[in-house]
Amino acid sequence: MITKAQQKYIKALQIKKYRKLHQAFLVEGEKSLVELLTDTRWPVETLYCTELFYEKYATLIQQRAASYILTTADDLAKAGTLTNNQAGLAVVPWFVWPDLGNPTQGRWLILDDIQDPGNLGTILRIADWYGLQGIVCSIGTVDVYNPKVVMASMGALLRMPVYYTDLQEFIAQQSLPIYAAMLEGKNVHQFNFSPQGGLLLMGNEGHGVQPELLQYVQHSLHIPRYGLSESLNVAIATAVLCDNWLRDFGG
Amino acid sequence: MITKAQQKYIKALQIKKYRKLHQAFLVEGEKSLVELLTDTRWPVETLYCTELFYEKYATLIQQRAASYILTTADDLAKAGTLTNNQAGLAVVPWFVWPDLGNPTQGRWLILDDIQDPGNLGTILRIADWYGLQGIVCSIGTVDVYNPKVVMASMGALLRMPVYYTDLQEFIAQQSLPIYAAMLEGKNVHQFNFSPQGGLLLMGNEGHGVQPELLQYVQHSLHIPRYGLSESLNVAIATAVLCDNWLRDFGG
Repeated sequence: MITKAQQKYIKALQIKKYRKLHQAFLVEGEKSLVELLTDTRWPVETLYCTELFYEKYATLIQQRAASYILTTADDLAKAGTLTNNQAGLAVVPWFVWPDLGNPTQGRWLILDDIQDPGNLGTILRIADWYGLQGIVCSIGTVDVYNPKVVMASMGALLRMPVYYTDLQEFIAQQSLPIYAAMLEGKNVHQFNFSPQGGLLLMGNEGHGVQPELLQYVQHSLHIPRYGLSESLNVAIATAVLCDNWLRDFGG
Repeated sequence: MITKAQQKYIKALQIKKYRKLHQAFLVEGEKSLVELLTDTRWPVETLYCTELFYEKYATLIQQRAASYILTTADDLAKAGTLTNNQAGLAVVPWFVWPDLGNPTQGRWLILDDIQDPGNLGTILRIADWYGLQGIVCSIGTVDVYNPKVVMASMGALLRMPVYYTDLQEFIAQQSLPIYAAMLEGKNVHQFNFSPQGGLLLMGNEGHGVQPELLQYVQHSLHIPRYGLSESLNVAIATAVLCDNWLRDFGG
Protein backbone atom coordinates (compact mmCIF):
# COMPACT_ATOMS: atom_id res chain seq x y z
CA MET A 1 0.00 0.00 0.00
CA ILE A 2 0.93 3.63 -0.43
CA THR A 3 1.20 5.67 2.79
CA LYS A 4 -0.12 9.23 3.10
CA ALA A 5 3.44 10.58 3.06
CA GLN A 6 4.32 8.58 -0.06
CA GLN A 7 1.12 9.71 -1.74
CA LYS A 8 2.00 13.32 -0.95
CA TYR A 9 5.46 12.88 -2.48
CA ILE A 10 4.00 11.26 -5.61
CA LYS A 11 1.47 14.09 -5.94
CA ALA A 12 4.27 16.63 -5.54
CA LEU A 13 6.17 15.07 -8.45
CA GLN A 14 3.22 15.90 -10.69
CA ILE A 15 4.14 19.57 -10.31
CA LYS A 16 7.14 21.07 -12.09
CA LYS A 17 8.37 23.06 -9.07
CA TYR A 18 8.60 19.96 -6.89
CA ARG A 19 10.14 17.82 -9.61
CA LYS A 20 12.90 20.41 -9.72
CA LEU A 21 13.22 20.46 -5.92
CA HIS A 22 13.47 16.66 -5.68
CA GLN A 23 15.22 16.16 -9.06
CA ALA A 24 12.90 13.27 -9.72
CA PHE A 25 9.86 12.36 -11.83
CA LEU A 26 7.22 9.64 -12.30
CA VAL A 27 6.98 6.79 -14.77
CA GLU A 28 3.56 5.09 -14.88
CA GLY A 29 1.91 2.18 -16.65
CA GLU A 30 3.17 -1.20 -17.79
CA LYS A 31 4.77 -0.31 -21.11
CA SER A 32 6.78 2.63 -19.81
CA LEU A 33 7.81 0.74 -16.65
CA VAL A 34 9.10 -2.22 -18.61
CA GLU A 35 11.16 0.12 -20.78
CA LEU A 36 12.47 1.78 -17.62
CA LEU A 37 13.39 -1.48 -15.93
CA THR A 38 15.21 -2.79 -19.00
CA ASP A 39 17.20 0.42 -19.56
CA THR A 40 20.03 0.10 -17.03
CA ARG A 41 21.19 3.69 -17.46
CA TRP A 42 18.23 4.87 -15.37
CA PRO A 43 18.17 4.30 -11.61
CA VAL A 44 14.80 3.49 -10.04
CA GLU A 45 14.34 5.11 -6.62
CA THR A 46 11.07 3.43 -5.66
CA LEU A 47 8.69 1.22 -7.58
CA TYR A 48 5.08 0.95 -6.41
CA CYS A 49 3.45 -1.93 -8.22
CA THR A 50 0.60 -4.41 -8.18
CA GLU A 51 1.19 -8.05 -7.32
CA LEU A 52 0.29 -8.92 -10.89
CA PHE A 53 3.04 -6.67 -12.25
CA TYR A 54 5.49 -7.97 -9.64
CA GLU A 55 4.86 -11.60 -10.56
CA LYS A 56 5.37 -10.84 -14.22
CA TYR A 57 8.66 -8.95 -13.81
CA ALA A 58 10.05 -10.12 -10.43
CA THR A 59 13.64 -10.73 -11.53
CA LEU A 60 13.88 -7.43 -13.35
CA ILE A 61 12.38 -5.57 -10.39
CA GLN A 62 14.75 -7.15 -7.90
CA GLN A 63 17.73 -6.29 -10.07
CA ARG A 64 16.75 -2.75 -10.86
CA ALA A 65 14.57 -1.10 -8.19
CA ALA A 66 16.37 0.29 -5.13
CA SER A 67 13.11 -0.43 -3.32
CA TYR A 68 9.71 -1.72 -4.32
CA ILE A 69 6.35 -1.63 -2.58
CA LEU A 70 3.38 -3.81 -3.43
CA THR A 71 0.11 -1.92 -3.75
CA THR A 72 -3.26 -1.97 -5.51
CA ALA A 73 -4.58 -0.49 -8.73
CA ASP A 74 -6.90 1.66 -6.58
CA ASP A 75 -3.99 3.15 -4.63
CA LEU A 76 -2.06 3.74 -7.86
CA ALA A 77 -5.03 5.59 -9.34
CA LYS A 78 -5.33 7.72 -6.18
CA ALA A 79 -1.67 8.68 -6.07
CA GLY A 80 -0.74 8.81 -9.75
CA THR A 81 -2.09 10.51 -12.87
CA LEU A 82 -3.60 7.48 -14.62
CA THR A 83 -7.23 6.65 -13.88
CA ASN A 84 -6.59 2.99 -14.64
CA ASN A 85 -3.17 1.66 -13.73
CA GLN A 86 -2.99 -2.12 -13.25
CA ALA A 87 0.81 -2.09 -13.33
CA GLY A 88 2.67 0.43 -11.22
CA LEU A 89 4.41 3.73 -10.78
CA ALA A 90 8.10 4.47 -10.34
CA VAL A 91 9.89 7.43 -8.80
CA VAL A 92 12.94 8.05 -10.96
CA PRO A 93 15.81 10.48 -10.34
CA TRP A 94 16.60 12.85 -13.21
CA PHE A 95 19.17 11.54 -15.61
CA VAL A 96 21.91 13.91 -16.69
CA TRP A 97 22.68 13.53 -20.38
CA PRO A 98 26.21 14.26 -21.65
CA ASP A 99 26.82 17.98 -22.23
CA LEU A 100 25.16 19.28 -25.36
CA GLY A 101 28.00 21.51 -26.61
CA ASN A 102 27.70 22.42 -30.27
CA PRO A 103 26.79 19.37 -32.35
CA THR A 104 29.04 18.81 -35.36
CA GLN A 105 27.13 15.84 -36.74
CA GLY A 106 23.84 14.02 -36.64
CA ARG A 107 20.26 15.18 -36.84
CA TRP A 108 18.71 17.26 -34.07
CA LEU A 109 15.37 18.83 -33.35
CA ILE A 110 15.04 22.33 -31.94
CA LEU A 111 11.70 23.12 -30.30
CA ASP A 112 10.65 26.72 -29.86
CA ASP A 113 8.11 26.91 -27.00
CA ILE A 114 6.07 23.75 -27.63
CA GLN A 115 3.27 24.05 -25.06
CA ASP A 116 1.22 20.89 -25.23
CA PRO A 117 2.63 17.93 -23.26
CA GLY A 118 0.97 15.45 -25.64
CA ASN A 119 2.76 17.11 -28.55
CA LEU A 120 6.16 17.01 -26.82
CA GLY A 121 5.72 13.34 -25.85
CA THR A 122 4.69 12.44 -29.39
CA ILE A 123 7.66 14.38 -30.79
CA LEU A 124 10.01 12.41 -28.49
CA ARG A 125 8.58 9.18 -29.89
CA ILE A 126 9.04 10.45 -33.46
CA ALA A 127 12.63 11.58 -32.78
CA ASP A 128 13.37 8.15 -31.32
CA TRP A 129 11.75 6.37 -34.29
CA TYR A 130 13.83 8.35 -36.78
CA GLY A 131 17.03 7.93 -34.74
CA LEU A 132 17.70 11.62 -34.14
CA GLN A 133 20.59 12.54 -31.81
CA GLY A 134 18.63 14.74 -29.43
CA ILE A 135 16.18 17.54 -28.85
CA VAL A 136 17.08 21.10 -27.85
CA CYS A 137 14.14 22.98 -26.29
CA SER A 138 13.62 26.64 -25.52
CA ILE A 139 13.28 27.46 -21.83
CA GLY A 140 9.57 28.08 -22.46
CA THR A 141 8.90 24.58 -23.80
CA VAL A 142 6.75 22.34 -21.59
CA ASP A 143 8.75 20.29 -19.06
CA VAL A 144 9.86 16.94 -20.47
CA TYR A 145 9.20 15.29 -17.07
CA ASN A 146 5.54 16.38 -17.05
CA PRO A 147 3.58 13.11 -16.53
CA LYS A 148 1.61 13.66 -19.76
CA VAL A 149 4.85 14.01 -21.72
CA VAL A 150 6.24 10.85 -20.12
CA MET A 151 3.07 8.96 -20.98
CA ALA A 152 2.82 10.18 -24.58
CA SER A 153 6.50 9.41 -25.23
CA MET A 154 5.87 5.68 -24.59
CA GLY A 155 9.38 5.17 -23.28
CA ALA A 156 11.17 7.30 -25.88
CA LEU A 157 11.99 9.83 -23.14
CA LEU A 158 14.36 7.29 -21.62
CA ARG A 159 16.42 7.10 -24.79
CA MET A 160 16.25 10.56 -26.33
CA PRO A 161 18.55 13.25 -24.88
CA VAL A 162 16.58 16.45 -24.23
CA TYR A 163 18.15 19.80 -23.35
CA TYR A 164 16.66 23.14 -22.29
CA THR A 165 18.59 26.25 -23.22
CA ASP A 166 18.38 29.82 -24.46
CA LEU A 167 17.62 29.09 -28.10
CA GLN A 168 18.83 32.37 -29.52
CA GLU A 169 22.23 31.94 -27.92
CA PHE A 170 22.41 28.27 -28.91
CA ILE A 171 21.29 28.68 -32.49
CA ALA A 172 23.68 31.56 -33.16
CA GLN A 173 26.64 29.23 -32.53
CA GLN A 174 25.71 26.32 -34.77
CA SER A 175 27.72 25.22 -37.79
CA LEU A 176 25.37 22.48 -38.99
CA PRO A 177 22.66 23.59 -41.44
CA ILE A 178 19.51 24.87 -39.76
CA TYR A 179 16.12 23.96 -41.27
CA ALA A 180 12.82 25.37 -40.11
CA ALA A 181 9.21 24.42 -40.76
CA MET A 182 7.47 27.45 -42.28
CA LEU A 183 4.26 27.70 -44.28
CA GLU A 184 6.06 29.86 -46.87
CA GLY A 185 9.18 27.64 -47.10
CA LYS A 186 10.48 25.49 -49.96
CA ASN A 187 8.59 22.33 -50.89
CA VAL A 188 10.20 19.58 -48.83
CA HIS A 189 9.29 16.97 -51.47
CA GLN A 190 11.69 18.71 -53.86
CA PHE A 191 14.35 19.63 -51.36
CA ASN A 192 17.73 17.92 -50.97
CA PHE A 193 18.90 17.83 -47.37
CA SER A 194 22.60 18.08 -46.63
CA PRO A 195 24.10 14.63 -45.93
CA GLN A 196 26.14 16.03 -43.01
CA GLY A 197 23.09 16.25 -40.74
CA GLY A 198 21.59 19.39 -39.28
CA LEU A 199 19.10 20.99 -36.95
CA LEU A 200 15.36 21.10 -37.64
CA LEU A 201 13.55 23.96 -35.89
CA MET A 202 9.85 23.56 -35.10
CA GLY A 203 7.81 26.50 -33.80
CA ASN A 204 5.15 26.96 -31.16
CA GLU A 205 1.64 25.54 -31.82
CA GLY A 206 0.03 28.95 -32.21
CA HIS A 207 2.74 31.39 -33.23
CA GLY A 208 5.24 29.29 -35.15
CA VAL A 209 8.96 30.07 -34.96
CA GLN A 210 9.81 33.31 -33.13
CA PRO A 211 11.09 35.98 -35.56
CA GLU A 212 14.38 36.45 -33.66
CA LEU A 213 15.48 32.94 -34.68
CA LEU A 214 14.72 33.24 -38.39
CA GLN A 215 17.98 35.02 -39.28
CA TYR A 216 19.85 31.82 -38.38
CA VAL A 217 17.73 29.55 -40.57
CA GLN A 218 19.38 28.48 -43.84
CA HIS A 219 16.42 26.61 -45.31
CA SER A 220 12.78 27.11 -44.48
CA LEU A 221 10.65 24.19 -45.63
CA HIS A 222 6.99 23.48 -46.02
CA ILE A 223 4.97 20.32 -46.40
CA PRO A 224 2.90 20.55 -49.60
CA ARG A 225 -0.82 20.68 -49.04
CA TYR A 226 -3.26 19.02 -51.45
CA GLY A 227 -6.48 19.84 -49.63
CA LEU A 228 -8.00 22.54 -47.47
CA SER A 229 -6.79 22.25 -43.85
CA GLU A 230 -5.04 25.43 -42.79
CA SER A 231 -2.27 23.70 -40.90
CA LEU A 232 -0.96 20.45 -39.51
CA ASN A 233 -0.42 19.74 -35.82
CA VAL A 234 3.23 20.36 -34.87
CA ALA A 235 3.91 16.71 -34.01
CA ILE A 236 2.43 15.62 -37.35
CA ALA A 237 4.56 18.17 -39.21
CA THR A 238 7.67 17.02 -37.32
CA ALA A 239 7.03 13.41 -38.34
CA VAL A 240 6.50 14.23 -42.01
CA LEU A 241 9.62 16.43 -42.15
CA CYS A 242 11.73 13.76 -40.38
CA ASP A 243 10.46 11.16 -42.83
CA ASN A 244 11.53 13.38 -45.73
CA TRP A 245 14.86 14.09 -44.00
CA LEU A 246 15.75 10.46 -43.41
CA ARG A 247 14.45 8.89 -46.61
CA ASP A 248 17.63 9.68 -48.56
CA PHE A 249 20.27 9.08 -45.90
CA GLY A 250 18.84 6.94 -43.16
CA GLY A 251 19.47 3.65 -44.97
CA MET B 1 -27.51 33.44 -21.07
CA ILE B 2 -28.08 29.71 -21.34
CA THR B 3 -31.24 28.38 -19.64
CA LYS B 4 -31.28 25.15 -17.62
CA ALA B 5 -33.16 23.39 -20.41
CA GLN B 6 -30.66 24.56 -23.02
CA GLN B 7 -27.77 23.50 -20.81
CA LYS B 8 -29.34 20.07 -20.43
CA TYR B 9 -29.68 19.74 -24.22
CA ILE B 10 -26.05 20.82 -24.74
CA LYS B 11 -24.88 18.32 -22.11
CA ALA B 12 -26.91 15.59 -23.79
CA LEU B 13 -25.16 16.25 -27.09
CA GLN B 14 -21.88 15.35 -25.43
CA ILE B 15 -23.13 11.75 -25.26
CA LYS B 16 -23.25 9.55 -28.34
CA LYS B 17 -26.70 8.10 -27.59
CA TYR B 18 -28.31 11.54 -27.43
CA ARG B 19 -26.45 12.85 -30.47
CA LYS B 20 -28.02 9.97 -32.35
CA LEU B 21 -31.46 10.68 -30.86
CA HIS B 22 -31.33 14.38 -31.77
CA GLN B 23 -29.22 13.92 -34.94
CA ALA B 24 -27.13 16.90 -33.88
CA PHE B 25 -23.71 17.70 -32.41
CA LEU B 26 -21.67 20.56 -30.93
CA VAL B 27 -19.07 22.84 -32.46
CA GLU B 28 -17.09 24.89 -29.93
CA GLY B 29 -14.38 27.56 -29.94
CA GLU B 30 -13.60 30.43 -32.27
CA LYS B 31 -11.63 28.66 -34.98
CA SER B 32 -14.10 25.84 -35.50
CA LEU B 33 -17.10 28.20 -35.32
CA VAL B 34 -15.67 30.51 -37.96
CA GLU B 35 -15.10 27.51 -40.24
CA LEU B 36 -18.68 26.40 -39.57
CA LEU B 37 -20.18 29.82 -40.28
CA THR B 38 -18.25 30.20 -43.52
CA ASP B 39 -19.15 26.74 -44.83
CA THR B 40 -22.67 27.23 -46.16
CA ARG B 41 -23.34 23.51 -46.60
CA TRP B 42 -23.84 23.18 -42.84
CA PRO B 43 -26.99 24.52 -41.20
CA VAL B 44 -26.58 26.07 -37.73
CA GLU B 45 -29.50 25.29 -35.42
CA THR B 46 -28.53 27.53 -32.51
CA LEU B 47 -25.42 29.56 -31.80
CA TYR B 48 -24.61 30.51 -28.21
CA CYS B 49 -21.88 33.13 -28.25
CA THR B 50 -20.20 35.89 -26.29
CA GLU B 51 -20.79 39.54 -27.17
CA LEU B 52 -17.16 39.74 -28.23
CA PHE B 53 -17.63 36.92 -30.76
CA TYR B 54 -20.89 38.42 -31.94
CA GLU B 55 -19.36 41.83 -32.58
CA LYS B 56 -16.54 40.26 -34.56
CA TYR B 57 -18.75 38.11 -36.80
CA ALA B 58 -22.20 39.78 -36.67
CA THR B 59 -22.91 39.69 -40.41
CA LEU B 60 -21.89 36.06 -40.75
CA ILE B 61 -23.94 35.08 -37.71
CA GLN B 62 -27.06 36.84 -38.94
CA GLN B 63 -26.77 35.17 -42.34
CA ARG B 64 -26.05 31.70 -41.08
CA ALA B 65 -27.48 30.95 -37.65
CA ALA B 66 -31.18 30.02 -37.48
CA SER B 67 -31.06 31.51 -34.00
CA TYR B 68 -28.36 32.99 -31.81
CA ILE B 69 -28.23 33.67 -28.09
CA LEU B 70 -25.76 35.96 -26.38
CA THR B 71 -24.12 34.47 -23.32
CA THR B 72 -20.94 34.57 -21.23
CA ALA B 73 -17.69 32.61 -21.26
CA ASP B 74 -18.66 31.27 -17.82
CA ASP B 75 -21.95 29.89 -19.10
CA LEU B 76 -20.20 28.39 -22.14
CA ALA B 77 -17.69 26.63 -19.87
CA LYS B 78 -20.53 25.30 -17.70
CA ALA B 79 -22.56 23.94 -20.60
CA GLY B 80 -19.86 22.91 -23.06
CA THR B 81 -16.72 20.77 -22.98
CA LEU B 82 -14.07 23.53 -23.12
CA THR B 83 -12.82 24.94 -19.82
CA ASN B 84 -12.04 28.22 -21.52
CA ASN B 85 -14.34 29.30 -24.32
CA GLN B 86 -14.38 33.04 -25.06
CA ALA B 87 -16.16 32.51 -28.37
CA GLY B 88 -19.21 30.29 -28.47
CA LEU B 89 -20.87 26.98 -29.06
CA ALA B 90 -23.15 25.89 -31.88
CA VAL B 91 -25.72 23.14 -32.09
CA VAL B 92 -25.44 21.68 -35.58
CA PRO B 93 -27.68 19.09 -37.25
CA TRP B 94 -25.92 16.09 -38.75
CA PHE B 95 -24.94 16.53 -42.33
CA VAL B 96 -25.65 13.66 -44.69
CA TRP B 97 -22.80 13.15 -47.13
CA PRO B 98 -23.52 11.74 -50.60
CA ASP B 99 -23.80 7.94 -50.60
CA LEU B 100 -20.46 6.21 -50.35
CA GLY B 101 -21.06 3.43 -52.85
CA ASN B 102 -17.87 1.80 -54.12
CA PRO B 103 -15.26 4.44 -54.95
CA THR B 104 -13.72 4.07 -58.40
CA GLN B 105 -11.20 6.86 -58.03
CA GLY B 106 -9.43 9.09 -55.55
CA ARG B 107 -7.64 8.34 -52.30
CA TRP B 108 -9.52 7.12 -49.25
CA LEU B 109 -8.70 6.17 -45.71
CA ILE B 110 -10.20 3.12 -44.03
CA LEU B 111 -10.05 3.13 -40.22
CA ASP B 112 -10.37 -0.14 -38.35
CA ASP B 113 -11.59 0.60 -34.80
CA ILE B 114 -9.66 3.77 -34.00
CA GLN B 115 -10.53 4.39 -30.34
CA ASP B 116 -8.96 7.68 -29.31
CA PRO B 117 -10.98 10.78 -30.25
CA GLY B 118 -7.82 12.90 -30.46
CA ASN B 119 -6.40 10.44 -32.99
CA LEU B 120 -9.56 10.49 -35.14
CA GLY B 121 -9.71 14.31 -35.08
CA THR B 122 -6.05 14.55 -36.04
CA ILE B 123 -6.56 12.00 -38.83
CA LEU B 124 -9.45 14.10 -40.20
CA ARG B 125 -7.13 17.11 -40.29
CA ILE B 126 -4.45 15.07 -42.07
CA ALA B 127 -6.93 13.66 -44.61
CA ASP B 128 -8.13 17.21 -45.30
CA TRP B 129 -4.53 18.51 -45.65
CA TYR B 130 -3.68 15.78 -48.17
CA GLY B 131 -6.94 16.24 -50.06
CA LEU B 132 -8.26 12.71 -49.60
CA GLN B 133 -11.80 11.95 -50.81
CA GLY B 134 -13.16 10.58 -47.56
CA ILE B 135 -12.81 8.28 -44.58
CA VAL B 136 -14.56 4.94 -44.17
CA CYS B 137 -14.70 3.80 -40.52
CA SER B 138 -15.54 0.48 -38.92
CA ILE B 139 -18.65 0.52 -36.75
CA GLY B 140 -16.38 0.25 -33.70
CA THR B 141 -14.45 3.44 -34.51
CA VAL B 142 -15.01 6.35 -32.11
CA ASP B 143 -17.92 8.62 -33.10
CA VAL B 144 -16.83 11.43 -35.41
CA TYR B 145 -19.23 13.84 -33.63
CA ASN B 146 -17.58 13.23 -30.23
CA PRO B 147 -16.66 16.76 -28.99
CA LYS B 148 -12.99 15.81 -28.68
CA VAL B 149 -12.93 14.64 -32.30
CA VAL B 150 -14.60 17.87 -33.44
CA MET B 151 -12.05 19.92 -31.49
CA ALA B 152 -8.99 18.01 -32.68
CA SER B 153 -10.15 18.14 -36.30
CA MET B 154 -9.91 21.95 -36.27
CA GLY B 155 -12.70 22.32 -38.80
CA ALA B 156 -11.62 19.46 -41.07
CA LEU B 157 -14.71 17.51 -39.98
CA LEU B 158 -16.86 19.98 -41.87
CA ARG B 159 -15.12 19.22 -45.14
CA MET B 160 -14.14 15.57 -44.97
CA PRO B 161 -16.86 12.97 -45.72
CA VAL B 162 -16.85 10.26 -43.04
CA TYR B 163 -18.80 7.01 -43.28
CA TYR B 164 -19.39 4.17 -40.80
CA THR B 165 -19.93 0.74 -42.22
CA ASP B 166 -19.20 -2.96 -41.85
CA LEU B 167 -15.59 -2.94 -43.03
CA GLN B 168 -15.38 -6.56 -44.04
CA GLU B 169 -18.40 -6.24 -46.30
CA PHE B 170 -17.17 -2.91 -47.70
CA ILE B 171 -13.58 -3.92 -48.30
CA ALA B 172 -14.55 -7.17 -50.06
CA GLN B 173 -16.27 -5.15 -52.80
CA GLN B 174 -13.51 -2.68 -53.67
CA SER B 175 -11.78 -2.52 -57.02
CA LEU B 176 -9.23 0.18 -56.15
CA PRO B 177 -5.93 -1.08 -54.71
CA ILE B 178 -5.96 -1.55 -50.93
CA TYR B 179 -2.88 -0.58 -48.93
CA ALA B 180 -2.43 -1.28 -45.25
CA ALA B 181 0.02 -0.05 -42.63
CA MET B 182 1.79 -3.10 -41.19
CA LEU B 183 5.08 -3.35 -39.31
CA GLU B 184 6.17 -6.20 -41.59
CA GLY B 185 5.09 -4.51 -44.84
CA LYS B 186 7.18 -3.19 -47.74
CA ASN B 187 9.32 -0.10 -47.21
CA VAL B 188 7.08 2.81 -48.23
CA HIS B 189 10.13 4.88 -49.24
CA GLN B 190 10.79 2.40 -52.04
CA PHE B 191 7.20 1.71 -52.97
CA ASN B 192 5.42 3.02 -56.06
CA PHE B 193 1.77 3.73 -55.42
CA SER B 194 -0.72 3.18 -58.21
CA PRO B 195 -1.63 6.48 -59.91
CA GLN B 196 -5.32 5.49 -60.02
CA GLY B 197 -5.81 6.13 -56.30
CA GLY B 198 -6.71 3.59 -53.68
CA LEU B 199 -7.70 2.86 -50.11
CA LEU B 200 -5.28 3.06 -47.19
CA LEU B 201 -6.26 0.90 -44.23
CA MET B 202 -5.06 1.93 -40.75
CA GLY B 203 -5.53 -0.39 -37.77
CA ASN B 204 -6.55 0.03 -34.16
CA GLU B 205 -4.08 1.71 -31.75
CA GLY B 206 -3.35 -1.47 -29.83
CA HIS B 207 -4.13 -4.39 -32.12
CA GLY B 208 -3.45 -3.08 -35.61
CA VAL B 209 -5.55 -4.26 -38.55
CA GLN B 210 -7.94 -7.13 -37.75
CA PRO B 211 -6.81 -10.38 -39.41
CA GLU B 212 -10.14 -10.84 -41.24
CA LEU B 213 -9.37 -7.81 -43.41
CA LEU B 214 -5.84 -8.79 -44.42
CA GLN B 215 -6.91 -11.09 -47.25
CA TYR B 216 -8.21 -8.04 -49.13
CA VAL B 217 -4.99 -6.04 -48.80
CA GLN B 218 -2.86 -5.91 -51.96
CA HIS B 219 0.10 -4.04 -50.48
CA SER B 220 1.13 -3.90 -46.85
CA LEU B 221 3.52 -1.04 -46.18
CA HIS B 222 5.76 0.02 -43.34
CA ILE B 223 7.48 3.26 -42.46
CA PRO B 224 11.22 2.62 -42.10
CA ARG B 225 12.56 3.08 -38.61
CA TYR B 226 16.04 4.47 -37.98
CA GLY B 227 15.95 4.47 -34.18
CA LEU B 228 14.52 2.49 -31.30
CA SER B 229 10.84 3.39 -30.73
CA GLU B 230 8.66 0.34 -31.06
CA SER B 231 5.91 2.07 -32.95
CA LEU B 232 4.45 5.34 -34.14
CA ASN B 233 1.11 6.75 -33.05
CA VAL B 234 -1.60 5.89 -35.62
CA ALA B 235 -2.21 9.53 -36.59
CA ILE B 236 1.52 10.06 -37.08
CA ALA B 237 1.75 6.93 -39.23
CA THR B 238 -1.28 8.06 -41.27
CA ALA B 239 0.38 11.41 -41.97
CA VAL B 240 3.69 9.91 -43.03
CA LEU B 241 1.99 7.36 -45.31
CA CYS B 242 -0.22 10.04 -46.87
CA ASP B 243 2.84 12.21 -47.48
CA ASN B 244 4.51 9.31 -49.26
CA TRP B 245 1.31 8.57 -51.18
CA LEU B 246 0.80 12.10 -52.44
CA ARG B 247 4.39 13.12 -53.15
CA ASP B 248 4.40 11.52 -56.60
CA PHE B 249 0.89 12.32 -57.77
CA GLY B 250 -0.48 15.15 -55.74
CA GLY B 251 1.11 17.88 -57.88
